[in-house]
Amino acid sequence: MKEVNQRLALLRKRMQELSIDTYLIPSSDAHISEYVADHWKSREWISGFTGSAGTVIVTANFAGLWVDSRYFIQAAKQIEGTEFKLFKLRTENTPDYPEWLLDNMDEKSKLGFDGSVLSFTLAQNLFDELSDIDVEFVYDYDVVGDIWEDRPSIPKDKIFVHDEKFAGLSINDKLKQLLYVMEDNDADAHVLSALDDIAWLYNIRGKDIDYNPVAIAYSIITREEAILFIDTDKLDDTSKKHLVDSAISIKHYSEFYKELETLSGYILLDDNKTNFKTAMILDRNNAIVVEGLSPVTEFKAIKNKTEIDGLNQAHIRDGVSMLRFQKWLFENVGKIEMDEYSIGEKVNEFRRLGENHLGESFETIVGYKENGAIVHYSANKETANKVEADGFLLIDSGGQYIDGTTDITRMYYLGKEASKDEKRDYTNILKGNIALTKAVFPEGTKGIQLDVLARQFIWQEGQNYLHGTGHGVGCCLNVHEGPQSIRMEENPITLKKGMVVTNEPGVYLEGKYGIRIEHCLLVTTAKTTDFGEYYTFEPLTLCPIDKTAIDFDLMSKSEIKWINAYHQLVYDKLSPNLNKEEKEYLKLKTITFEK
Amino acid sequence: MKEVNQRLALLRKRMQELSIDTYLIPSSDAHISEYVADHWKSREWISGFTGSAGTVIVTANFAGLWVDSRYFIQAAKQIEGTEFKLFKLRTENTPDYPEWLLDNMDEKSKLGFDGSVLSFTLAQNLFDELSDIDVEFVYDYDVVGDIWEDRPSIPKDKIFVHDEKFAGLSINDKLKQLLYVMEDNDADAHVLSALDDIAWLYNIRGKDIDYNPVAIAYSIITREEAILFIDTDKLDDTSKKHLVDSAISIKHYSEFYKELETLSGYILLDDNKTNFKTAMILDRNNAIVVEGLSPVTEFKAIKNKTEIDGLNQAHIRDGVSMLRFQKWLFENVGKIEMDEYSIGEKVNEFRRLGENHLGESFETIVGYKENGAIVHYSANKETANKVEADGFLLIDSGGQYIDGTTDITRMYYLGKEASKDEKRDYTNILKGNIALTKAVFPEGTKGIQLDVLARQFIWQEGQNYLHGTGHGVGCCLNVHEGPQSIRMEENPITLKKGMVVTNEPGVYLEGKYGIRIEHCLLVTTAKTTDFGEYYTFEPLTLCPIDKTAIDFDLMSKSEIKWINAYHQLVYDKLSPNLNKEEKEYLKLKTITFEK
Repeated sequence: MKEVNQRLALLRKRMQELSIDTYLIPSSDAHISEYVADHWKSREWISGFTGSAGTVIVTANFAGLWVDSRYFIQAAKQIEGTEFKLFKLRTENTPDYPEWLLDNMDEKSKLGFDGSVLSFTLAQNLFDELSDIDVEFVYDYDVVGDIWEDRPSIPKDKIFVHDEKFAGLSINDKLKQLLYVMEDNDADAHVLSALDDIAWLYNIRGKDIDYNPVAIAYSIITREEAILFIDTDKLDDTSKKHLVDSAISIKHYSEFYKELETLSGYILLDDNKTNFKTAMILDRNNAIVVEGLSPVTEFKAIKNKTEIDGLNQAHIRDGVSMLRFQKWLFENVGKIEMDEYSIGEKVNEFRRLGENHLGESFETIVGYKENGAIVHYSANKETANKVEADGFLLIDSGGQYIDGTTDITRMYYLGKEASKDEKRDYTNILKGNIALTKAVFPEGTKGIQLDVLARQFIWQEGQNYLHGTGHGVGCCLNVHEGPQSIRMEENPITLKKGMVVTNEPGVYLEGKYGIRIEHCLLVTTAKTTDFGEYYTFEPLTLCPIDKTAIDFDLMSKSEIKWINAYHQLVYDKLSPNLNKEEKEYLKLKTITFEK
Repeated sequence: MKEVNQRLALLRKRMQELSIDTYLIPSSDAHISEYVADHWKSREWISGFTGSAGTVIVTANFAGLWVDSRYFIQAAKQIEGTEFKLFKLRTENTPDYPEWLLDNMDEKSKLGFDGSVLSFTLAQNLFDELSDIDVEFVYDYDVVGDIWEDRPSIPKDKIFVHDEKFAGLSINDKLKQLLYVMEDNDADAHVLSALDDIAWLYNIRGKDIDYNPVAIAYSIITREEAILFIDTDKLDDTSKKHLVDSAISIKHYSEFYKELETLSGYILLDDNKTNFKTAMILDRNNAIVVEGLSPVTEFKAIKNKTEIDGLNQAHIRDGVSMLRFQKWLFENVGKIEMDEYSIGEKVNEFRRLGENHLGESFETIVGYKENGAIVHYSANKETANKVEADGFLLIDSGGQYIDGTTDITRMYYLGKEASKDEKRDYTNILKGNIALTKAVFPEGTKGIQLDVLARQFIWQEGQNYLHGTGHGVGCCLNVHEGPQSIRMEENPITLKKGMVVTNEPGVYLEGKYGIRIEHCLLVTTAKTTDFGEYYTFEPLTLCPIDKTAIDFDLMSKSEIKWINAYHQLVYDKLSPNLNKEEKEYLKLKTITFEK
């Protein structure tokens, strides 16, 4: 705590030297990543708050931290005893940070932020919000960087080639696609900052960031040249050859901003995934910034045949791991000591045995009973709940494999019989999951149009969940991948054949339990009729659904038929990879039932 | 035809006098109404095309008519032999009219249109679309008006008072609400052009336009004064007293534009419902136009208790008429001569017998067999299909009553037994209708989120309908009333308690049959839980659903339970108004069935 206040004092001294009245520190890195390397954890360093999202504002006599509901408790604890004041986003009478700035900044005073880590979109929003008070923006200084001794350096891990036998397309196949779209849109160059877009385009992967197998890099693609800006120490002979053979120009990471100054004409970039500094440099040099989704993001979202094959293989391995874990769990629960933390380790351990496994795709969530109701719960070794032969256990986990990325949530009912409410809620979530998976919908349908299928049954009970129903998933890439989604909010992106999306309805009863059932789904063609092409979903996830808490009275015939068919598929796909005992266990867990 | 070409010649002569190179003629009136009085049918007069929507463009050597798919056949017929070239909107290789203008107009040439009948939104779109070719816009001339001899005058029918016992709120209650919102939004004045908004605000109704019981008028509401601009000949002593007693300033319709010139400050208006000329006059006089939905539109959409009571009563009367018609139909079909046209007359005849009836709420649609597949079919006396004891008959009709407006579609299967396909399609539409009606959804839900519930079953078959699932309905006002809707397209308006919306899924098989089942629904509270307030729908429409074509094997228990409960409701509400024979008939048509 004392350390945080000392750091604040240093920051204020430096702010004074630079005549900055108010300084804003966001959570993102230079690539506007979801997870960031330690080097970019400025907000954490200055505040002591370790969550993934939050915003800090500091003035001469004020220090504030804005966090969303996921982090209300954690943030309060972590800033206790410091000067920081907590602002709980979307709670009554709490201004959002732009509102706070509008109310508290003097006219013509100076607002500072590091333009290299704030997205172009957020910076533009700030300008709009504060236009009435004529604030001066200072965005050229990384003020935390100036005072941060022992700052971790940018990761230097070697990258590796994502072989075409997993990627399905060569770099040049992909560049050709991109150039075609650029020409069609009269773009002279495309600036790429998003690490997963870059990894996908150049068929490379890295280890620079937890859970996301990406490497820190930028790229500029003009009509003549594709340049990868990367710390050249990250390249070994193989990866260098891979790039050079495809005629990619390699420049050092630090040369990116300099190169931007040479660009002219129409420059395409994604304002949500590009930092403000990039846009400012282009603007200053009379290039014309065209904001929009990167064509690379759109290509990447649609998995090719090789990727789909890989995903299917990865999901078989993932299902085998989950099944082995489940077998272990039920054989041992109530007999040996276990808690949420040790169970998480066990899940990861089983997954690690799978072929082609690179690591987890996000931090494994194990929530027992009431902790299952905390959506982004992360069990702590010291405070984890003991797990006994009773109640619901929620496990949300996923793996990175060289041929695919997985994301699965399963509920295990550890007692003998669930209560009536537990059964109703579990069954309604299962029914929602099935209804969405079984949906058939015309080409051109957006996620918001299908979302209700997953929610309809809990809505009947006056229940809801405030997270999305589904997000895109990468292929040996980020587990949260755009641009598609299935949510209550409008997103203009339509679901297209070859996209992967999760299906994860949930219900969370504070102090009682949380329930979520999650599958990865592939968008495929259902049929083509006089009315056009119709899509449906094919489950990628292969893992039995625990039947203990199902209330069969609430299930329709066609829902039961779906479960039986799904369990048959799970058995057919997993059993060739199991030993006799495991096979028998799976048989039992996937047994057909009738109504 | 010859006449049309002669009129074109006159138009071109006048265009030349005014140095206009290209002249655009839209379908709307000065109030951007859906249905327009004859006075404003300029597009029809110049082209001979009588449909409700379409756009004409004329140059020295070109005349084009743009229509949507509803009118492809009709328009082609009606312009046959004239100079007009038909453009079928949203068909391949057909430019929309702004595109055509962009491709065919010379730089710096002059585009004319009558700014008093083009909406502000459409005019702005045109400016945007044509910004590249630096066109000069001439919008001060009604060029068709200049050459149109014997032009019908603006209707002069007397208005009448919509009594507070039907309206539920006094003029001053409504104005108070409006002023509150205006103050809250710093609006100095609100300009109202939409005829239904004006009728609602002042509790008046008129007979100026077919189907919509509105009067031609404008209104300006400032912080100090509410002015109604109306042809004073339309007022009798009662209506004048009604307005004067509420301290409304009455000015002549023709004084509206002059009055606009006196306004200053922030002026709220709905850009979709206000003509371009209005916005230009304000702009020229240094008033600041603030575009947005009128608060009146929002108030009007949420029915008060009196209106809801009235709607319920109107729907009982409407249901009785429909039942009597249905009884007549089945007693006579196959025995006496009847066709789509005579059946439409019969429907209107039965409705006319109802108390408080003012007329139809739109043109009755009677589509037999293959004509049911033409969504906006209107049977012609000469060419109407004969109707026999066989196949599907679709009837979409509605009534205007002093206490409510109705809109209902029913299918009657006139043969003994429907085919397997007919049953499947009819049952799927019915299932979709039930699923939407039964939906429970949280406050804040938009129509696009619920739309799939009505479509899900036909989507499974690879079928769809291209119209919306639901539109708002007025109360003794327009049958199509905004701002809410239930459709595949995004509309930011959420469904609120007290709104009325239709539920009308359909399926249309060209050359075979069309099926649609439509109810009016009221948004009501289902329950309030820890998760917030949840809404559901209550059917307003009261009319048996024909069971002949239902495939009960496709119906779930809960769907059958819903039909039984709905039929019980229909019986309970209608039977007190029926004679013994009719009561017995209704009993038969609403009999409980089990699975």
